[in-house]
Amino acid sequence: VTAPRDPDGFGLDHLPYGVVRTESRQVAVARYTDRLLDLSTIDSELFAAGTLDALLAAGRDTWRQVRSAVSAALQADTTPLVPLAEATPVLPYTVADYVDFYASDQHATNAGRIFRPGAQPLTPNWKHLPVGYHGRAGTVVVSGTAVRRPWGQFPSSAGPLEYGPSRKLDFEAEVGFVVGAPSEPGVPILVDAFAEHVFGLTLLNDWSARDIQGFEMVPLGPHLGKSFATSVSAWITPLDALERAWRPPPSRDVPPPRHLDDRDLPGGLDLELTVSINGVVVSRPPFATMYWTAGQLLAQLTSNGASARTGDLLGSGTVSGPDRDQFGSLLELAWNGTDPLPVGESVRAWLEDGDEVVITASAPANRGGRLELGEVRGRISPAGAAR
Amino acid sequence: VTAPRDPDGFGLDHLPYGVVRTESRQVAVARYTDRLLDLSTIDSELFAAGTLDALLAAGRDTWRQVRSAVSAALQADTTPLVPLAEATPVLPYTVADYVDFYASDQHATNAGRIFRPGAQPLTPNWKHLPVGYHGRAGTVVVSGTAVRRPWGQFPSSAGPLEYGPSRKLDFEAEVGFVVGAPSEPGVPILVDAFAEHVFGLTLLNDWSARDIQGFEMVPLGPHLGKSFATSVSAWITPLDALERAWRPPPSRDVPPPRHLDDRDLPGGLDLELTVSINGVVVSRPPFATMYWTAGQLLAQLTSNGASARTGDLLGSGTVSGPDRDQFGSLLELAWNGTDPLPVGESVRAWLEDGDEVVITASAPANRGGRLELGEVRGRISPAGAAR
Repeated sequence: VTAPRDPDGFGLDHLPYGVVRTESRQVAVARYTDRLLDLSTIDSELFAAGTLDALLAAGRDTWRQVRSAVSAALQADTTPLVPLAEATPVLPYTVADYVDFYASDQHATNAGRIFRPGAQPLTPNWKHLPVGYHGRAGTVVVSGTAVRRPWGQFPSSAGPLEYGPSRKLDFEAEVGFVVGAPSEPGVPILVDAFAEHVFGLTLLNDWSARDIQGFEMVPLGPHLGKSFATSVSAWITPLDALERAWRPPPSRDVPPPRHLDDRDLPGGLDLELTVSINGVVVSRPPFATMYWTAGQLLAQLTSNGASARTGDLLGSGTVSGPDRDQFGSLLELAWNGTDPLPVGESVRAWLEDGDEVVITASAPANRGGRLELGEVRGRISPAGAAR
Repeated sequence: VTAPRDPDGFGLDHLPYGVVRTESRQVAVARYTDRLLDLSTIDSELFAAGTLDALLAAGRDTWRQVRSAVSAALQADTTPLVPLAEATPVLPYTVADYVDFYASDQHATNAGRIFRPGAQPLTPNWKHLPVGYHGRAGTVVVSGTAVRRPWGQFPSSAGPLEYGPSRKLDFEAEVGFVVGAPSEPGVPILVDAFAEHVFGLTLLNDWSARDIQGFEMVPLGPHLGKSFATSVSAWITPLDALERAWRPPPSRDVPPPRHLDDRDLPGGLDLELTVSINGVVVSRPPFATMYWTAGQLLAQLTSNGASARTGDLLGSGTVSGPDRDQFGSLLELAWNGTDPLPVGESVRAWLEDGDEVVITASAPANRGGRLELGEVRGRISPAGAAR
């Protein structure tokens, strides 16, 4: 092929992975521009199941071999490619455990100001460890899946509790890290071993019903306010496509504990996100501002002795930059409904039925320019019938 | 066989299921006394993988057919049985999502009194919904697995934060419910449909590091204080063995929301637990006292539209009865270390290396007498090396 260097962000520099259904079958693929390479033509055994799970588990040497082979096959132009338009992406891997963190100091500060006015916005633990919690793996869905407005319990304006469709439905723009190579129980993953274990990343929308979440979450954390759906990109960008994206971590006024010390590592990532609602860009969150880095999140998750499994998904938490047009949730952009956000000719305090939220991001590509991560897209469908 | 009715609690009334490794292979089995029936002799296709996962997914009609066939085979005495002593139990099913609830009012009240003295012990939401959170599915281990003391961060007596082995290691005596038949996204499981979806139950020890948990859990709930290990029984008792165990739910001073209304259902379960440390019984928690019933927990989990999957594990939360010798954790039994618990000739504020905790339980059997649930056993091993 006479390959353009970086056509539409999905050039030879990128080559993300996914799984699609075609008319006849499910197949693991690498994406190149708007075409798909059937990975079973690269390794019939590794991709026999039509999933990426065996690739993820195989480890970094295999990840690099497969990437080289895909690149060579595309440049040799001998393998027929499936047009993207003829395939339907499905969830690209089996999600094992999903842990969502809370790694942006700006987001945590905003949330603290909104929910605990007058108090210190950050809780006492926040700068000593990356706060996180387990989310629901079974309701992680691929980009494009409709998101049904959840039901739940929350205080109503009339006074008594209500059980009904959420009235405060929100998005959270995040980055998701996908664990490939597992770790042994009792053996923490060190902060500098991130790339030995993590296969790649996606964008992630941690849909949140603020009314349900607000009533339920003391003392054991969010549950039903989040568990109805979490959307991830159809395309996993391998870390090997992000060699030029690493940045020094942000400066920190409290030294991290020694097992999270990353002073000498370029642990930050230059990912420039955009969030749009119904086609109108409403925010541009900069991932490089995150206080806790991805390597610290994985190190923390295993620091107590817990093992990580192939398919574990780590969410960064909402990405919010210091400026208001860099906030990563409606909670922050419309300040808990008190200052509705202009969206084209309309305004939004919370998401309405039919609203479509799209998160995109770009990152420095290995050979210059920027690549585009696979978008994560979801439209709100009306709540189910009364029960 | 001339079968004793209920020998050692594992008679024909019971017939729990498990998965074992023998010298040559892994096999799904039903347990009868101290012997095991290879389930592939009952249905070679359903049990071809040597797991229970396909049985769980198959639904209630199949559950009943298999149970009848196992019972018939045992009574016909034509199938050779493997001695329990020659087999090593492994985790009996693939855990999908693990949600741990907090359904005992006595436990929640005790925890509130200990951690928020002077305040209302129950949070405002507690009697309106079963509070719960997602735990780590990937570190659920089978009874008998050693539990390594976790590392973590917590305030030290010297003042500054410490990263070291937990000094406040605890158990929590719980019951675990195993989902078999999945549900559709957006379609809640009604409170009276519990037995259509839940295959059976086990005992569960939700090991907890109170120092790690205490520092991390505001605002997003427990994470590393729990995620290092959760132990479950090797034997799943099918609901069909517990027909006589159902009891009316406890009286409630706050009416549950309508989707959790179980006034007309016998949703409680008469399970009498015992907890022992190093062979000394230290507590006898009565499960029938739980405020929220198992049917309510599953209904709540799906009430927002989230689907349940085959292999989902629901923990009841710590089972604590009204009397002090019925409390289900050391936190409560030794009142946060202030009143150490006599254990034989010794005392315990928290668990020490080498301590073995065993949780057992009995339940009314279908034809009279009581059956014994599979125990959950775990011994504390020392923390890993410094890092």
